[in-house]
Amino acid sequence: MLCGCACLVLAVFELFGAHAQTDPLQSWNDTASKKAIIGFVQKVTKGGAPDFVPADQRIATFDNDGTLWIEQPMYVQMVFVLDRVRQLAPKNPSWNTTQPFKGVLDGDMKAIAAAGEQGLMQLMAATHAGVTVEEFQKIVTDWMATAQQPRFKRPYTQCIYQPMLELLAYLRSHGFKTYIVSGGGVEFMRPWTERVYGIPPEQVVGSSIKTRFEVINGKPALMRLPELNLIDDKEGKPVGINQYIGRRPIAAFGNSDGDQQMLEWTAAGGGPRFMLLVHHTDAAREYAYDRQSPYGRLDKALDEATARGWTVVDMKNDWKVIFPQK
Amino acid sequence: MLCGCACLVLAVFELFGAHAQTDPLQSWNDTASKKAIIGFVQKVTKGGAPDFVPADQRIATFDNDGTLWIEQPMYVQMVFVLDRVRQLAPKNPSWNTTQPFKGVLDGDMKAIAAAGEQGLMQLMAATHAGVTVEEFQKIVTDWMATAQQPRFKRPYTQCIYQPMLELLAYLRSHGFKTYIVSGGGVEFMRPWTERVYGIPPEQVVGSSIKTRFEVINGKPALMRLPELNLIDDKEGKPVGINQYIGRRPIAAFGNSDGDQQMLEWTAAGGGPRFMLLVHHTDAAREYAYDRQSPYGRLDKALDEATARGWTVVDMKNDWKVIFPQK
Repeated sequence: MLCGCACLVLAVFELFGAHAQTDPLQSWNDTASKKAIIGFVQKVTKGGAPDFVPADQRIATFDNDGTLWIEQPMYVQMVFVLDRVRQLAPKNPSWNTTQPFKGVLDGDMKAIAAAGEQGLMQLMAATHAGVTVEEFQKIVTDWMATAQQPRFKRPYTQCIYQPMLELLAYLRSHGFKTYIVSGGGVEFMRPWTERVYGIPPEQVVGSSIKTRFEVINGKPALMRLPELNLIDDKEGKPVGINQYIGRRPIAAFGNSDGDQQMLEWTAAGGGPRFMLLVHHTDAAREYAYDRQSPYGRLDKALDEATARGWTVVDMKNDWKVIFPQK
Repeated sequence: MLCGCACLVLAVFELFGAHAQTDPLQSWNDTASKKAIIGFVQKVTKGGAPDFVPADQRIATFDNDGTLWIEQPMYVQMVFVLDRVRQLAPKNPSWNTTQPFKGVLDGDMKAIAAAGEQGLMQLMAATHAGVTVEEFQKIVTDWMATAQQPRFKRPYTQCIYQPMLELLAYLRSHGFKTYIVSGGGVEFMRPWTERVYGIPPEQVVGSSIKTRFEVINGKPALMRLPELNLIDDKEGKPVGINQYIGRRPIAAFGNSDGDQQMLEWTAAGGGPRFMLLVHHTDAAREYAYDRQSPYGRLDKALDEATARGWTVVDMKNDWKVIFPQK
């Protein structure tokens, strides 16, 4: 059924010549990365060819932070946490004297770091739990509408990578189902991914906290609890993929060591495979970082990509533009 | 994008007059249940009408056991557990003297029940964990190919309800995305739901155990662990829906008290809603059971359905046939 639908859609696209009109990857320079992407897609979509993959098996998974949108000078969700602590502080006077909250209010990143994993969990609980899923959706949506990336002075949802948007659309126009598989919070992403990336909520996999079904004033609600459910990063990415999607991707896109296991899991399947890492090499137009970065560190995965011949995007040389036009 | 695709598909259907040819719900008698289903679908799919719902929000969730396939004389997954214990017994001689395994080998259901929840977990661990997800897929697929329902002498995957198959197809032909949301194990269902129901693995939500990413002999694998991840039943159904789908369904279909919270969660959303329970009233053609049944008990949810005007299918009077033709 799925396959039938996809074929019909493709047939209609063909009918109107949508493919032929323009370069679907026009923000990509004609380098090896672009050629590798197009070569893979042509190979798996050509009916009757030995590497043909039926449409329902064309699953492509994308990391979010650093792969689809910006992750410097720190992860966007961390900015959200800090902003939300400041916003809630007037109602929580004890935070003025208690770490890690004091550190946030003082802008003292060292104190926050010193609070370690337990401190991080306290911050997550205070900023992500204790509300219903619908209340949290509204909190995220409101924050996204006003927060700005400090260097580029634009909303974070516009600090997304134009070449990757084109790649998402290109894959979808060839029958791929595109998923986000991110270490970021699933409910931090779902309120805006459809509008920004064309990826609906049900195709977003991410880290999560537990929820509990409650009836509040006669109305059913899902309450967000201060308890981890899934850390969808590193070894957690194949776990999340299997749990949510139940199929192994044939293509996976990341940018950091947090994506290494997702790419390994994708590579280990049978038939044609495509693995890609975005290497942030463009300090002028975005940021340049890899092995030493506290956010989006790319070290072991870069070595593995080199050793195994995975595609590595050199942002500076492979991309004509970074962000969408305002 | 999703909406665009669905519209194109619908347009193509209209073009070929696929809707007009035959009654899409031909195994349903012309009773109130059928009229309620058609009335709802027409209402939410008619462009410009006050109750119109965009295609990307047409999420419909279906329980599996007792709603899409048979659950008597016991849950199918329980038959699988018992069969698998017998199959593995020669390699586990201690089971001959240890409960709950001894109970299974002796066919002593009382001894199994007496082992309680802990006993059940031991059975689940022994039969569902300790293998990779791919090994488990093969185990399930092989079992499904040979196991037979004792009364109807046909594979369980043919002890599915023909009227519900038609309902699934009818909803999909009107732009709905159909999901399974079952208390059964997600990896027990995914290997066959696409073939049997037209529901792909990524649209199956169910109970699950945890998995761990491991590299075995240089090859990445997901190992199934003897540890619960999600019990997707009762209060767990809205939790599972939110976790996997991230949207509230506009229509939900169940048959037991295990589905009550899913229907309540669905009913509590804004705009048009449709809630349906299958009431097993046909001892001659299938089974008749409700308030007293150990499997698929329908008691509180039946009262709530009556009180709130949810649709209750009377299997004996509403369905022309039960199972697909052999």
